[in-house]
Amino acid sequence: MAKAPHPGQNLSTGFRILEMASVKNLMDENAEALPMFEEMLKRCSNLVQESFADEFSKLSDRPLLDAMRYATQGGKRFRALLVIESAKLYGVAGKSAVLTATAAEAMHAYSLVHDDLPCMDDDDLRRGQPTVHVKWDEATAVLVGDALQAFAYELLTRPEIGQPDVICALVSKMSGVTGISGMVLGQALDIEAEKNLTPQTLQSIRELQACKTGALIGWAAGAGANLAGVSDKKLKQYGWLIGEAFQIADDVLDVEGDANKAGKKVGKDAAAGKATFVSLLGLDGAKSRARGLVDEAKTILDPFGSAADPLREAADFVISRDT
Amino acid sequence: MAKAPHPGQNLSTGFRILEMASVKNLMDENAEALPMFEEMLKRCSNLVQESFADEFSKLSDRPLLDAMRYATQGGKRFRALLVIESAKLYGVAGKSAVLTATAAEAMHAYSLVHDDLPCMDDDDLRRGQPTVHVKWDEATAVLVGDALQAFAYELLTRPEIGQPDVICALVSKMSGVTGISGMVLGQALDIEAEKNLTPQTLQSIRELQACKTGALIGWAAGAGANLAGVSDKKLKQYGWLIGEAFQIADDVLDVEGDANKAGKKVGKDAAAGKATFVSLLGLDGAKSRARGLVDEAKTILDPFGSAADPLREAADFVISRDT
Repeated sequence: MAKAPHPGQNLSTGFRILEMASVKNLMDENAEALPMFEEMLKRCSNLVQESFADEFSKLSDRPLLDAMRYATQGGKRFRALLVIESAKLYGVAGKSAVLTATAAEAMHAYSLVHDDLPCMDDDDLRRGQPTVHVKWDEATAVLVGDALQAFAYELLTRPEIGQPDVICALVSKMSGVTGISGMVLGQALDIEAEKNLTPQTLQSIRELQACKTGALIGWAAGAGANLAGVSDKKLKQYGWLIGEAFQIADDVLDVEGDANKAGKKVGKDAAAGKATFVSLLGLDGAKSRARGLVDEAKTILDPFGSAADPLREAADFVISRDT
Repeated sequence: MAKAPHPGQNLSTGFRILEMASVKNLMDENAEALPMFEEMLKRCSNLVQESFADEFSKLSDRPLLDAMRYATQGGKRFRALLVIESAKLYGVAGKSAVLTATAAEAMHAYSLVHDDLPCMDDDDLRRGQPTVHVKWDEATAVLVGDALQAFAYELLTRPEIGQPDVICALVSKMSGVTGISGMVLGQALDIEAEKNLTPQTLQSIRELQACKTGALIGWAAGAGANLAGVSDKKLKQYGWLIGEAFQIADDVLDVEGDANKAGKKVGKDAAAGKATFVSLLGLDGAKSRARGLVDEAKTILDPFGSAADPLREAADFVISRDT
């Protein structure tokens, strides 16, 4: 990421327009808050990594286990943080929140393994490491993804999660956001978009990304309310807003990012002539939109008071990260 | 399938040894019962097909929907029948049983679509039609499988299925039998077996097939008890036994079957030099073992009296089918 100082700001249409070459600069104002947030993210990451290790240690040595471990290592653990912090808002902590967070990360990991396949996005690098089909083979990658999807549901039905009605809500919503009307649809639309068969509009890109990225982020943000057995409407809305901002930041990183830091290829979209938030709105317009979405998401958290500060910082993190 | 008359029987080690060239002949004694059973199977098939049609009609036109419809058409609907008939034993019928049966068939269809992929078993033909990756492409096949897995869980969490504790049990058990300790493990072991890296024994083939085929059949047979909120131990055991018999019959069909009737390639295992029940036990030994398993499965049904006749016929069907 470029490290040049921030040259100026321009207030326009209610959003702060930033003209810097890096999304990192969107967060200059929060530069001090960020290390604390990153500490929190690190703690969530450790909790989830221990949870995966604990779960996998219960399984006897068998084919695919090493590849499942590999596929679930690393990453930002942003979805896990959303689960754990939204759960805290309702006083839900411990094993219940951590298992739910692990399920969200297992589902996310499955989608990455399948999306990276040669017949899909054909990526060789993920989280700075060779992708599963490169390190093993395509059959292993398909099966590891399949197993991780089942594993997410297995975790969600553990009695430690909560009462059966809580589990039913989590499972039902998870199947909705990951299936034919969610994550899978998003990936299918993305493949169509890559073929450039129909001109992409802002609306079609938003729909694509809402399915591909926003839906699972919305699920994770709403999980706290679901664990407490109350309406997840507000938190889910917060999740969808930061989900779109998350994808805009991804598009910005694809233009400006550093492959070494991102741990995956960058510049792919431009090379493929693929429409993105950046190609449709311009770099500044995209950053402005992302900032506006984050501000809107934070407004939704107002009724929760200072207890929601971690989720406010999570919203800022979405557009400040460099990976 | 060969149509020669049944030349004789030989009682040995408690199992009837049949020396015929076709599994069809194992069922000569039940030749009259079979048409009634096939009628019952047809009724289940129609119920599930209507259920799929109804569910898919709720989804707006989108990529993958045609391929999902295609992947869930046809087939024996044997797992659906096990769900519906085991549910009847406990007075559970209507939408609850049909949705559960549809979920079992959706999960089965997902596994077939992924197993047929070029990187897996590389099959061009399934249920007499081109496989999904042949008719569409590999990306579509991966995504359709992924969507069908999620769809199965979505169906299982419908309130019409039953109380939340019933749904939790069904979802939890489903994730167990389809994931890293079930169907996915079975497919991984099968791929290893095809590479002939380690000599296959009867025990290793049994383990492989129990995971790959038996586990979901066991789930389907136990579903009735789970829907009624009672122990599924006996029905699951019945399911695992007929599951193994089912796979033995598949191995016999791979040697003796007719590709036109089977709707898929036959003779693949022998061509690949792959160990099967038939290569390990011989054709007669395999048939004898299958018959023994079916008889044992039927014994388990004794406490249910005549109400379990459809499940007895289902057990016989396993080794009499020609597809």
